[in-house]
Amino acid sequence: MIKVGIVGGTGYTGVELLRLLAQHPEVEVEAITSRSEAGLCVTDLYPNLRGHYDNLTFSEPDAKRLGACDAVFFATPHGVAHALASELLEQGTRVIDLSADFRLRDAAEWAEWYGQPHGAPELLDESVYGLPEVNRDRIREARLIAVPGCYPTAVQLGLLPLLEAGLIDAERIIADCKSGVTGAGRGAKVPSLLAEASESMKAYGASGHRHLPEIRQGLGDAAGRAVGLTFVPHLTPMIRGIHATLYGRLTGSHDDLQGLFEQRFANEPFVDVMPPGSHPETRSVKGVNLCRLAVHRPGDGDTVVVLSVIDNLVKGASGQAIHNLNLMFGFDENAGLAAPALMP
Amino acid sequence: MIKVGIVGGTGYTGVELLRLLAQHPEVEVEAITSRSEAGLCVTDLYPNLRGHYDNLTFSEPDAKRLGACDAVFFATPHGVAHALASELLEQGTRVIDLSADFRLRDAAEWAEWYGQPHGAPELLDESVYGLPEVNRDRIREARLIAVPGCYPTAVQLGLLPLLEAGLIDAERIIADCKSGVTGAGRGAKVPSLLAEASESMKAYGASGHRHLPEIRQGLGDAAGRAVGLTFVPHLTPMIRGIHATLYGRLTGSHDDLQGLFEQRFANEPFVDVMPPGSHPETRSVKGVNLCRLAVHRPGDGDTVVVLSVIDNLVKGASGQAIHNLNLMFGFDENAGLAAPALMP
Amino acid sequence: MIKVGIVGGTGYTGVELLRLLAQHPEVEVEAITSRSEAGLCVTDLYPNLRGHYDNLTFSEPDAKRLGACDAVFFATPHGVAHALASELLEQGTRVIDLSADFRLRDAAEWAEWYGQPHGAPELLDESVYGLPEVNRDRIREARLIAVPGCYPTAVQLGLLPLLEAGLIDAERIIADCKSGVTGAGRGAKVPSLLAEASESMKAYGASGHRHLPEIRQGLGDAAGRAVGLTFVPHLTPMIRGIHATLYGRLTGSHDDLQGLFEQRFANEPFVDVMPPGSHPETRSVKGVNLCRLAVHRPGDGDTVVVLSVIDNLVKGASGQAIHNLNLMFGFDENAGLAAPALMP
Amino acid sequence: MIKVGIVGGTGYTGVELLRLLAQHPEVEVEAITSRSEAGLCVTDLYPNLRGHYDNLTFSEPDAKRLGACDAVFFATPHGVAHALASELLEQGTRVIDLSADFRLRDAAEWAEWYGQPHGAPELLDESVYGLPEVNRDRIREARLIAVPGCYPTAVQLGLLPLLEAGLIDAERIIADCKSGVTGAGRGAKVPSLLAEASESMKAYGASGHRHLPEIRQGLGDAAGRAVGLTFVPHLTPMIRGIHATLYGRLTGSHDDLQGLFEQRFANEPFVDVMPPGSHPETRSVKGVNLCRLAVHRPGDGDTVVVLSVIDNLVKGASGQAIHNLNLMFGFDENAGLAAPALMP
Repeated sequence: MIKVGIVGGTGYTGVELLRLLAQHPEVEVEAITSRSEAGLCVTDLYPNLRGHYDNLTFSEPDAKRLGACDAVFFATPHGVAHALASELLEQGTRVIDLSADFRLRDAAEWAEWYGQPHGAPELLDESVYGLPEVNRDRIREARLIAVPGCYPTAVQLGLLPLLEAGLIDAERIIADCKSGVTGAGRGAKVPSLLAEASESMKAYGASGHRHLPEIRQGLGDAAGRAVGLTFVPHLTPMIRGIHATLYGRLTGSHDDLQGLFEQRFANEPFVDVMPPGSHPETRSVKGVNLCRLAVHRPGDGDTVVVLSVIDNLVKGASGQAIHNLNLMFGFDENAGLAAPALMP
Repeated sequence: MIKVGIVGGTGYTGVELLRLLAQHPEVEVEAITSRSEAGLCVTDLYPNLRGHYDNLTFSEPDAKRLGACDAVFFATPHGVAHALASELLEQGTRVIDLSADFRLRDAAEWAEWYGQPHGAPELLDESVYGLPEVNRDRIREARLIAVPGCYPTAVQLGLLPLLEAGLIDAERIIADCKSGVTGAGRGAKVPSLLAEASESMKAYGASGHRHLPEIRQGLGDAAGRAVGLTFVPHLTPMIRGIHATLYGRLTGSHDDLQGLFEQRFANEPFVDVMPPGSHPETRSVKGVNLCRLAVHRPGDGDTVVVLSVIDNLVKGASGQAIHNLNLMFGFDENAGLAAPALMP
Repeated sequence: MIKVGIVGGTGYTGVELLRLLAQHPEVEVEAITSRSEAGLCVTDLYPNLRGHYDNLTFSEPDAKRLGACDAVFFATPHGVAHALASELLEQGTRVIDLSADFRLRDAAEWAEWYGQPHGAPELLDESVYGLPEVNRDRIREARLIAVPGCYPTAVQLGLLPLLEAGLIDAERIIADCKSGVTGAGRGAKVPSLLAEASESMKAYGASGHRHLPEIRQGLGDAAGRAVGLTFVPHLTPMIRGIHATLYGRLTGSHDDLQGLFEQRFANEPFVDVMPPGSHPETRSVKGVNLCRLAVHRPGDGDTVVVLSVIDNLVKGASGQAIHNLNLMFGFDENAGLAAPALMP
Repeated sequence: MIKVGIVGGTGYTGVELLRLLAQHPEVEVEAITSRSEAGLCVTDLYPNLRGHYDNLTFSEPDAKRLGACDAVFFATPHGVAHALASELLEQGTRVIDLSADFRLRDAAEWAEWYGQPHGAPELLDESVYGLPEVNRDRIREARLIAVPGCYPTAVQLGLLPLLEAGLIDAERIIADCKSGVTGAGRGAKVPSLLAEASESMKAYGASGHRHLPEIRQGLGDAAGRAVGLTFVPHLTPMIRGIHATLYGRLTGSHDDLQGLFEQRFANEPFVDVMPPGSHPETRSVKGVNLCRLAVHRPGDGDTVVVLSVIDNLVKGASGQAIHNLNLMFGFDENAGLAAPALMP
């Protein structure tokens, strides 16, 4: 049994950590912090947790108390983890950051996209990008994990097999992504109101979204060279879920794309390659730490289409964070992540 | 470890049994039947279960195979369980029927509301109404359980404390109920299409709904006399959930309705009396076997308003069925039912 | 052709006025005010109006400019219209207030429910409650109209025939109401987010809602005596629409409730009494100035159930406001209000 | 005033014709046919039309009665219009077919995609593809119109300027399209249930969809050569709306894509080129005959992204059909199509 802390517990990834950890046999939540809600019982804010965390109260962030935990999750907006992570690592606490703070290896690029200087560039070398399907071994040893973003997870898992095998034109990749509204967080903004976002569909950030450099970095690693990527995210009227539709031009020849995908993920507990001809639905992963994939080649032409679905709050955030924790502490990879998806 | 069978596994209560039983430490699903889908792997129909029931295939109903199970769930339309239940009971298999077939004690009343003769009136005496908050001890010993309907569960739990204490006018009870569309089942009907049911609200069955006699029977038992009930169900544009708003006229005097409710359900693991002034949301029980209640007395007048929410597929069907199973076989009441609700 | 102004044009009732007035043959929108958006073109905020109001810009509220209009609509939060209305009336401009500022005849009661002193009690005598089905003749002559609230419109229209005929127990009326989320306005609040309000149902204000005194006043007028009303509003996951389910105990005897309703509204262009046995859907009035009603008497007992649906933004606000305008200026009652509902 | 008939009036495009024609100053609906609902009043099936078509009843299709109309709309599944169209044309009635029956110029290609021989190949030469932005003059003179499909409308309008100007690689076009569920029609199918389609997103027909040859034909005409197109449609949890996200590789150089689009559609009443940087929402065209477009060039690279939104039932079907009618009979192009979109 280990003790964990959660910094920034009032957002959707924070409450999702609580929901999943309630079923984790090896973890106890020792502290959850929130400046705005300090003193409030978590079940008052999240009645769905009544009966599970009746004695857990939001507290002011306190490096000492958090430092007494074996691991601390950051479920914070970007920029918050930089300073505190360092302090915790010094106390021997391992850090799993769900924000974007340690995802980019290049501090200057981070500064450019996030509009502020990077607050802990000295930690970037040691930070491990927490995509277990790529970095499992490094994650086991890591002190500091940068949990991938939701779009980056869906896009990378769908393209890794093709790029690693050098089968598609790396100059010209298209990722058309659709996300439920929890991707925008729990902040009170007019465009996220039910009356505004329901019964409608729209693209956003077509000229450049903060997840773009992260995806490019990961795809570049897989391809062994810089990639050219067009990434257009869309807002979809649903609570959870990301559907990434990925387009590449086949350059190499390959007789069995289906087999390629199945083989690549054969030992991955949280990637499910669907049978040929499938169209995975986002609801088939609602609430669970899974990426379901299908690969198509329309008209047997030279365009490959990969369909990749995840729950943005689970495989795209809190579930993947717990998967990282399981690897870091030698738990069963499946611990806390075993329940099937809620459907319908 | 016991073996269970499911008859009629393609509907929403069938797949919900599978989802919940996947987490049950004491139960193995031995057989699942469906005439229309016999031969199909359950994960082909329900991809959310991939990885959990990869070797389970729908089979033709077979009394012998089902009779080899310790217990069999019926997740069938009304009328189906009558004949087969008898056959299974003879083989020593215990039966948990989620349909309406054994809920009414009066076979004639059943025949009137369901438009066909009752097929197994000889079993009615032994059938136990599976509302654990009322019949826990009888359930433990039962061979045949009639799992309560979804509306009846929400309405009875909200009114039991008041009726048992004789505090409201039993002649004049109003139950205004709102249900998500899974209450109408998985049948392909035009009014259940997203394009028809979304962005709209309507009442139905205002002149008489089949759950009316079941609710009246249960409330009558609590009151010790026949009750007068007006029950109006409404269709709500959401997948899961029932919100029952219950109105009664206070006749007896009681200083502490909140305390009455808290005391009545103090030892009930699946009823949560919310703090005074609460308005429970159906999403707070999404996917879980809970009824959350709040009691109000507007303007300190003589009308009491009880708000009662459940997930119609869990506490209103499959979860309650498993609760019954746990009682019948001496398992932890919470077995398979421990995960928190999915929110948001 | 008359000139109108709109004060507080950025909210949902403001934009709905613009949408409807775009089809009005006798009205030109001269000014629309908004402190927060002054200088912005309305089509930048509301792209659905591109092509209709391309030269209309939000301006600072200016009593002189508004006073040059024949009529001014207030689509403001409560408390705003009090001062400005007086100034406009002095300039000969007629005022149609969609807020709650002039609905209650009793300034003290207003102050109690709205938590501030009434700012223009001297206008209350002359203010006319703009429910045309009750006050058509007075509306024609009025200078100052208080447009009814959304819940009050749905509830009053459903109960008027019964109360005017003295057929139900006025002491014990129940109004169980369900509203789409636009009823909460366009303010950015967490509970109105799609991620929070979708896939859920909840009651609110069960202990007392600001529309309660307004409804009681209107029902009392119809009954000729004070009424006892329990009013419980619910939030429903849809954009528009109110469904009021109304319960009364029949005291007088009446053979033909259906006929009573049909006769009461025979000459009303915006009330539609549905055939016996109907269950009106809110979507059947989406975008239009109609109240559809159905009357039921379950089991031929002594409880009458009335189902009443409106679009909260149209018959519950902006459409009814335009109906008032049409009466005040002698236009066809249907002007600007003739299009059928959008379905599906 | 002309008389029109509607064949196949019970589906969504049929009722949408009725809704729009109710506001058309020059058109009277003389007959509406439905084999399944013959004898039923249209307002019994579609209560939203109460007060508008109270005396209109579905009738059996009757070539004589339809032949007495000036124009007949076919709102039928594919294959139905072939035989009847010919009969009507002979009687001098003009035909506007909303189905796919006359869209493809090549009868063999039609037969291949629709799995049956073409029933009226002799009419193909005279049939005019009813996209007014391309064929306005030919439409004015036409006797037989093939109204474009919903996806084809959104995709073609978004790509025409680029292809006509020869600016993108015609070999390699990607159309990632998202549609609301009314695109699947009013048929009762399990995947279209609210409980199945809500809170989820999925692709379908990734290996080939019937709209593909129609889009290729139209784009080929614009490009003056055969095009290579990857078209992936997706099902989105909303009632109405199509969002097409279109990707092309810029080959020619052009300084001002925005200007190109604005100029191309400068005189088009039903195409709205949004300001630079816009992301059109499908709700901004809810219920109206408009295509709103935005053009992006992410990172000033060589990929152009066009965002194109329509209401699939209006600009993608019934509204465009009426636009064709207006052209054919010399009415104002805007007749019956003037109201602004419903928002929110």
